[in-house]
Amino acid sequence: MKTIGAVIFEGFELLDLYGPLEMFALAGKDLQIQLLSHKEGPVKSGQGPTALPDAMLTNQSAYDILLVPGGPGTRALVSDTALLELIRKAAGRAELVLSVCTGAALLAKAGLLDGHTATTNKYAWSWATSQSDKVHWRRKARWVEDGKFFTSSGVSAGMDMSLAVIARLYGRQTAEKAALFAEYVWSDDPDNDRFAKAHGLI
Amino acid sequence: MKTIGAVIFEGFELLDLYGPLEMFALAGKDLQIQLLSHKEGPVKSGQGPTALPDAMLTNQSAYDILLVPGGPGTRALVSDTALLELIRKAAGRAELVLSVCTGAALLAKAGLLDGHTATTNKYAWSWATSQSDKVHWRRKARWVEDGKFFTSSGVSAGMDMSLAVIARLYGRQTAEKAALFAEYVWSDDPDNDRFAKAHGLI
Repeated sequence: MKTIGAVIFEGFELLDLYGPLEMFALAGKDLQIQLLSHKEGPVKSGQGPTALPDAMLTNQSAYDILLVPGGPGTRALVSDTALLELIRKAAGRAELVLSVCTGAALLAKAGLLDGHTATTNKYAWSWATSQSDKVHWRRKARWVEDGKFFTSSGVSAGMDMSLAVIARLYGRQTAEKAALFAEYVWSDDPDNDRFAKAHGLI
Repeated sequence: MKTIGAVIFEGFELLDLYGPLEMFALAGKDLQIQLLSHKEGPVKSGQGPTALPDAMLTNQSAYDILLVPGGPGTRALVSDTALLELIRKAAGRAELVLSVCTGAALLAKAGLLDGHTATTNKYAWSWATSQSDKVHWRRKARWVEDGKFFTSSGVSAGMDMSLAVIARLYGRQTAEKAALFAEYVWSDDPDNDRFAKAHGLI
């Protein structure tokens, strides 16, 4: 049994968070999901709906998989050194660290992606990639897997990445079964990214 | 400005709810999203994470778009006549009524789909369709649009359906823009449904 700690914050992006969590739940491997917040109380997403955290994100937080979504809230949080330190510590204890969309900006600013290859949201490309010049940013990628880090491009790409994580942990068949249950057309090739061109990044 | 009332209940399916809400938020049309519950307090999803409702679902509830997700919680709720009556009243006031996955079982049991064509989740096909024999259930469909009702098949199909709703309300270009922002590969043909065969329904 593995644990997933998903970091939430004011202005997180709904699908960045819940798309991956749906896929992990459908893997059927008894993955225990916890929403983590660095502040007390309910957390309002960037789109309106409010989530209730299951636990605080502290400097003792230890989860097998750490998931960091993006969203409009990341713009302010790259300057929140206390939060970045909590993420750095939790990432250090995690077997795998995942980001969706501009969640990569938080990982990058925390220094976690230094020397790694990564990707991020295309709409916020300039801003997100400016958080660290020590990251090898890949413009054309649905997601990038580099050691313990999985970073995905915008919003819906987090679901494709999560299925790849499931495949790495439990085998391809388990990932395909989750996609089938979700009636989800899995874009299973990380390099097949039509949006890099659509967004003028290449 | 339109309002969206999304019904939540214990055991709702994460992606059934948040996938569509993400797409509606990205339409950029100032759609006001409210999570509605027929009970006081936080609402736990079928996958673990907890949502905080914005308002009660009452017999006065009036929203332009009513969204009913599915999930394991629907199994018990088809017998909750008080909830079904609330859904029937809110649906009567809505311009559009949407269901994802087994959310259609609730609409069907409430009698709202009588005489209409509809679809639902494929894993729970027999159970969901047994809620009403007055519905023309379509086995092969990503989603079905019939008058004011949009019903989608399982989980991820709700996002494709929601983009079709956005296209109906605001034009195709607006839907395509939302999909582009989400880096989402929109399955935009409601009849293109590879999962009917994969699940042995045809």
